[in-house]
Amino acid sequence: MDLKKVFEPKSMAVVGVSVTNPLNPGTVIFNKNHHEMQVKTFPINLRGGNIEGTQIYPTVLDIPEEVDLAVIVVRADLVNSVLEDCGKAGIGGAIVISGGFAEMGNSGVELQKELVKIANEYDIALIGPNCMGVYSPPYVDTFFIPSERMLKPPPGNVAILSQSGGFIVDQFLSKYAERKIGVSAAVSIGNKAVVDETILMEYFLKDKRTKTVAMYLEGFREGEGRRFLDVAAEFGGDKNIIVFRAGKTAGGQKAAMSHTSSIAASPRLASDVFRQYGIVEAENEQEIVSFAKVLSFRNKPIINGDIAILTVSGGHGVICADLAAKYGLNLVEFTQEEIKEMKQLISPAAARIASLSNPIDLTGSAEDIDLERVLEYILQIDRVEAVLILTFPYPPTISMQIGRRLSNIAGRYGKPVVAYVPWLLKYDIIIEGFEINNVPVAHTVEEAVQMIKGLKMRRPKKQQ
Amino acid sequence: MDLKKVFEPKSMAVVGVSVTNPLNPGTVIFNKNHHEMQVKTFPINLRGGNIEGTQIYPTVLDIPEEVDLAVIVVRADLVNSVLEDCGKAGIGGAIVISGGFAEMGNSGVELQKELVKIANEYDIALIGPNCMGVYSPPYVDTFFIPSERMLKPPPGNVAILSQSGGFIVDQFLSKYAERKIGVSAAVSIGNKAVVDETILMEYFLKDKRTKTVAMYLEGFREGEGRRFLDVAAEFGGDKNIIVFRAGKTAGGQKAAMSHTSSIAASPRLASDVFRQYGIVEAENEQEIVSFAKVLSFRNKPIINGDIAILTVSGGHGVICADLAAKYGLNLVEFTQEEIKEMKQLISPAAARIASLSNPIDLTGSAEDIDLERVLEYILQIDRVEAVLILTFPYPPTISMQIGRRLSNIAGRYGKPVVAYVPWLLKYDIIIEGFEINNVPVAHTVEEAVQMIKGLKMRRPKKQQ
Repeated sequence: MDLKKVFEPKSMAVVGVSVTNPLNPGTVIFNKNHHEMQVKTFPINLRGGNIEGTQIYPTVLDIPEEVDLAVIVVRADLVNSVLEDCGKAGIGGAIVISGGFAEMGNSGVELQKELVKIANEYDIALIGPNCMGVYSPPYVDTFFIPSERMLKPPPGNVAILSQSGGFIVDQFLSKYAERKIGVSAAVSIGNKAVVDETILMEYFLKDKRTKTVAMYLEGFREGEGRRFLDVAAEFGGDKNIIVFRAGKTAGGQKAAMSHTSSIAASPRLASDVFRQYGIVEAENEQEIVSFAKVLSFRNKPIINGDIAILTVSGGHGVICADLAAKYGLNLVEFTQEEIKEMKQLISPAAARIASLSNPIDLTGSAEDIDLERVLEYILQIDRVEAVLILTFPYPPTISMQIGRRLSNIAGRYGKPVVAYVPWLLKYDIIIEGFEINNVPVAHTVEEAVQMIKGLKMRRPKKQQ
Repeated sequence: MDLKKVFEPKSMAVVGVSVTNPLNPGTVIFNKNHHEMQVKTFPINLRGGNIEGTQIYPTVLDIPEEVDLAVIVVRADLVNSVLEDCGKAGIGGAIVISGGFAEMGNSGVELQKELVKIANEYDIALIGPNCMGVYSPPYVDTFFIPSERMLKPPPGNVAILSQSGGFIVDQFLSKYAERKIGVSAAVSIGNKAVVDETILMEYFLKDKRTKTVAMYLEGFREGEGRRFLDVAAEFGGDKNIIVFRAGKTAGGQKAAMSHTSSIAASPRLASDVFRQYGIVEAENEQEIVSFAKVLSFRNKPIINGDIAILTVSGGHGVICADLAAKYGLNLVEFTQEEIKEMKQLISPAAARIASLSNPIDLTGSAEDIDLERVLEYILQIDRVEAVLILTFPYPPTISMQIGRRLSNIAGRYGKPVVAYVPWLLKYDIIIEGFEINNVPVAHTVEEAVQMIKGLKMRRPKKQQ
């Protein structure tokens, strides 16, 4: 089967549009692709008619051109006969949005078996059922969300695979957009009856535009875990693989069962096993975003997690020290000699009250130049693997250039530096100043700590 | 001593302004109060001169009017003689912004002892040293942050006490503003040499405008913990007390020591003890915001934490079920009869694929009316203490009225309902629709779960 038919289709049929209801999912998908994407789109409905002048064909067999992809949005009990038509029409890709298959148990399981049989018979690359399909710019977007309800992330190097379509839309497309994390493609895999996460992971690990594959998974079926690890080992290499597994508690597992029929048939892969393969496992929704962001920048993994924290707010130094411990990072101990040298670098007003152990709290009396000098000093200490800067631009002596000034210095050393900046529109200039020189900025202090954790997790454990 | 001199001063001296440097903290404080607050403000500097026409007096003794409050922003070694002048001038309140006292050890400890002696001698209500002072609208604002660097929260019923000024500014004033959590006052207590958290807590528990006191603490000194609990027991009652303690790890404790000289001289109060007094303890920065928000609404505490989750995104149902377990909440099990009845309430498109166990996933095919009917149904089940609604307004069949429609129903029952709505400008209308009828909206799914946890924690354990 050929996944290019799904991700870079030239032409597409949307089976199940409505001429009367503009909010009908099929109609929404038709309209989005017709007006916003490159794919040539044909609407399909047995009753015929037209949508704003575009002819509706009764079935895919009636389309007078070659079609790469069919998006199927009809009732579950009608899906298989539509798929049969697709096979006969020589359509190589299919996305089944409709729910009502294995996740319902009983007759749904049978329907899904039949679906798989037809897909295999005609060698159709089938995504779903029970999914939202793919967002693959500039080609195709089968999410049935009207454009005015969405936020699309900027183009970039993160590919997203998810067993929950809602998760992609909410977490990735809105939170990614907010944090300026760029996306190469997103796939809602649903019940993954034919094409599963491993097949897609391999596709995106080979994809030139993709540097990181981020995944939301509810469970592997029997044998899938082994295959997943083999593909990660074979094609991962310099690319990043991030996994977030939901359904870890009894209640979550039960919910996952009725959501995508995910079962823990095979024993759960231990987190340690992921670690050995250099797969970064996120513990929660926030971490997967933090990891995706930090890994979308050019940063080498770190080994021990030995960091320095630079702040102008003492209270946040305390909070950050607690968080560093929570996330398995270590605060480098500075020698008395080093503390003395740092003290000589900073202006008298700050020197009088600064605390120069780790976290380094330069206080609200610090100026840009104090932060610059101390940052440069600690980047030169071998024991420091990475620096976390808590940039509170509240003291009037900190300028709006602080991001650029500090990232200019960070750029001279090969060490990862991450920053926190209060995420307000008026501080965008500081965020841009950091990020232009490869210093990722986090939304919260905790996300900044998670970013450093991500760089530590990225290093395959067996290589240590 | 009279704390009204600090929180509702009619007149104020700012000791330590500069005529040459507009970013000087004293000058910033003078300008803010002079132009933005009700307090009449006098600038003080030994060299005299004026600030844009306002006369600078050499010392507080030279001011020809009665003065309620002095804000002191001079070098540590000059503070005590200024305070002595304040005493002689009959000034009843003082805020010492300057750092360089007990938090520095050695001679700083001696300076602070002298400071306390003078304050006691003249019965001065003294905040600090090493703090940012108070934000008490519409009277006074001694935070040395220029207005253009801040976001002020809306007026409301939460009073904030913090050992870190930066924490208030960042967490409370920007995150509160974003979440529309209203504030009655905020105090950065610094080294709390004279006025400490317990004195302030009592003041605000008696304050009519304040319903909730939220605190960031780095540590109690010998004997302080007992007094704190006594005041909570005596004056708490219907008011809410939220505590977030930083410096819990070894690294965090060390940082707290050099930040505000906080030491764990007395054994740490166990979280269970807080619980017995109905004090809600937040585990992290995020929780204190979630708790402050949910408790600023009219909601009764719940007993067991037995909840129902209502979603249109199955993946978020799974995530939320995991989070409920993490936060000690229980998903109510619905009977087969109840599930059958719910199924009859919803439209056929949703009924075919919805999952009606808990979490209830009505899927992307749900319409407003489906959510309304199911919400009403589960609010009538006695076993359900609270409902958490995950409102993803992405499916085109969910309208922008969904918040108002669901909160109209929630208002008919006495049970707490909280909601998650993606926090985008375009969904503000949904957020407003919920909150107008007393349904607080969370920024993230996790914050929504934390809100319910807060309602459970609020109930004093000994009463259970």
